[in-house]
Amino acid sequence: MQVTPASPGCLAGIRVLDLTQFEAGTTCTEALAWMGADIAKVEPPRGEAGRTGFGDAYYFMMYNANKRSITVNLKSDRGLALVKEMVKQADVFTENFAPGAVERLGLGYDVVSAINPGIIYAQVKGFGDGSPYEKGLSFDPIAQAAGGSMSITGERDGRPVKPGPTIGDTGTGMLMAFSIVSALFERARTGKGRLLQVAMQDSVMHYSRGGFITQARTGKAAPRRPAANNPPGGIFPCKPGGPNDYVYLLTSRANPEHWPRLLKLIGREDLIGDPRYDTPDARLKREAEVDEFVASWTRERTKHEAMAQLSAVGVPAGAVLDTQELVDEPSFYERGILQTMVHGERKMAMPTWPVRFDGVPTEVKSAPLLGEHTAEVLADWLGLDTAAVAALRQDGIV
Amino acid sequence: MQVTPASPGCLAGIRVLDLTQFEAGTTCTEALAWMGADIAKVEPPRGEAGRTGFGDAYYFMMYNANKRSITVNLKSDRGLALVKEMVKQADVFTENFAPGAVERLGLGYDVVSAINPGIIYAQVKGFGDGSPYEKGLSFDPIAQAAGGSMSITGERDGRPVKPGPTIGDTGTGMLMAFSIVSALFERARTGKGRLLQVAMQDSVMHYSRGGFITQARTGKAAPRRPAANNPPGGIFPCKPGGPNDYVYLLTSRANPEHWPRLLKLIGREDLIGDPRYDTPDARLKREAEVDEFVASWTRERTKHEAMAQLSAVGVPAGAVLDTQELVDEPSFYERGILQTMVHGERKMAMPTWPVRFDGVPTEVKSAPLLGEHTAEVLADWLGLDTAAVAALRQDGIV
Repeated sequence: MQVTPASPGCLAGIRVLDLTQFEAGTTCTEALAWMGADIAKVEPPRGEAGRTGFGDAYYFMMYNANKRSITVNLKSDRGLALVKEMVKQADVFTENFAPGAVERLGLGYDVVSAINPGIIYAQVKGFGDGSPYEKGLSFDPIAQAAGGSMSITGERDGRPVKPGPTIGDTGTGMLMAFSIVSALFERARTGKGRLLQVAMQDSVMHYSRGGFITQARTGKAAPRRPAANNPPGGIFPCKPGGPNDYVYLLTSRANPEHWPRLLKLIGREDLIGDPRYDTPDARLKREAEVDEFVASWTRERTKHEAMAQLSAVGVPAGAVLDTQELVDEPSFYERGILQTMVHGERKMAMPTWPVRFDGVPTEVKSAPLLGEHTAEVLADWLGLDTAAVAALRQDGIV
Repeated sequence: MQVTPASPGCLAGIRVLDLTQFEAGTTCTEALAWMGADIAKVEPPRGEAGRTGFGDAYYFMMYNANKRSITVNLKSDRGLALVKEMVKQADVFTENFAPGAVERLGLGYDVVSAINPGIIYAQVKGFGDGSPYEKGLSFDPIAQAAGGSMSITGERDGRPVKPGPTIGDTGTGMLMAFSIVSALFERARTGKGRLLQVAMQDSVMHYSRGGFITQARTGKAAPRRPAANNPPGGIFPCKPGGPNDYVYLLTSRANPEHWPRLLKLIGREDLIGDPRYDTPDARLKREAEVDEFVASWTRERTKHEAMAQLSAVGVPAGAVLDTQELVDEPSFYERGILQTMVHGERKMAMPTWPVRFDGVPTEVKSAPLLGEHTAEVLADWLGLDTAAVAALRQDGIV
């Protein structure tokens, strides 16, 4: 099944004035772009920090697909006035500058909402107003530290570990994207603008709520728990023993049928119904022994064999796949979940928006080159003609 | 600043027929509930697995706030017919059963969309159609294994580690929630229904895209990287040495001013401008030495002192906070980000939807007791009177 990716187009006609940078803000507007909104990414003439700060384009490409780029010198009065004209045409305004910076630029909520009372104005910061750290700078791992996710990640007796996924950045971007579209839905009925604000620390707490369940249950800080609290469950070693040759499997406390299915597969039918192992609590008392039943089976198989055999009998299992294995898996391209982005001379295997609409994956279009769409956006949004744009360029405004 | 939480109400009037269970589906409909949608959570008379499978109510409470619960025996013809009547009144239908189960129940997309062509029908599975594992069961850690997040989490030379945040579950729920509201926005203009499908594996890839940047850059599998690739950066030990007494700090490659700020704070102005340390690449060659400059300073401070002092001079820093410290922090309650949910005899400190609308945090209402709103929902959605509901109860249908 080879499908042709396309935008679902749900947000066609929505204009987003996008002053975001790095990842927490850019992933938000990228999601809106994938739904068909028109994103005018306003960059300083040198390019935003996520474009220029990493020595190559891959970071920028990943988080800015399907957008248009326009350069504007916001430090100039005419540049600022130009962006204020764009505010009048925008449905959404987004930014994730350091605390206080957008106000110093002269584009705070009071200014922007006075120009366009119907605008959805969305701000991402590291910490919330009223937090002891409200002035603090944040990047993804800072939010992950302060939002609880590191405290619940790591080996059982090891130090805290930063989760690899960028929950503080992309995680926050997703929560804001949902909130923006919800506000747009309301605005279509009421015409009412909104001020939306999110703190990355608070977003990380949202994704870490499993830890708050444990906190409520035990009255103590949730521990690092690499394995399920319900043996056997966790990561098991596989052939040939490389750094990612593991399979994760679990037997769910809520699904008691998993345990006998597993025993049958690994050739230990003799233990089915044995009271020493028949309940999660009984197995918890013999955790090392139970884990070894499983490990002695997984060690004889590759992670792919183990996953296939476990899945086939209805035991939840996942091979630990690394990025190389994922970009090498043909079915992701056939399904359109991985697509190849071309950006200048670079190519990158890129995961698209993972939700399919009517069976169709979303098309990944290239992230824009710096200022690639300056003239086009100024024509579309403000009706400026070629001569007007040339004059702005001449004067260093765009 | 004490604020009174309230629902932003953006989705008021939207009816969601919610057949979700556990977390990946329930977090999606909970987000819709927080925006003011009317969620009719349809449970079997024994309760859904997330309510009954964990020995207490906390798991259910966390992921089912602000919903209404109705019990229906879907194995009975009359129960199924009742839900089909509800389909006619619904704007959204959601489910995350095991592969094939909703079709076996008689509520597949073909059936539901024939009854209500304008419905947004949303499905969460572990793996996508066309994946080698499309029939496989999934739980959060399975998706995290197969979606790449475990391969990029852990100590540098250690085995893969499961991130504590439930990216496979809540992470997926957020992507689907955004997609549903985008489809509702479109439907308000077109009347068109949609089939939305997401795989948890694909969602985990979305949150792990930083690893795909590294893959593109190096042509190799992204490694486990507990620290930034730009020393000093990472987790540093603090007083008094407890399991979560660490501070994460970083100096961003894209923000060269962080390094001299840090040197000044830790009393090493002598190194400002020293070419042995002045660029990220130079510091990378002396990583252990550079890290020790910082560690010798952090070890003399608590994580709170370190974070406060680093933040004050503009170096991004976050104390590693655990769930106990987070639920004990008064500012979260003052800001309304943490609220106390009461559910029967239980209470729980619960993070609300982290995005504030016009400065107001979203109100957390209790997760429903089993079947608490059966009569109310049947009256609201279908106009059934007390006698009709009593008859259904008598016959074991609801």
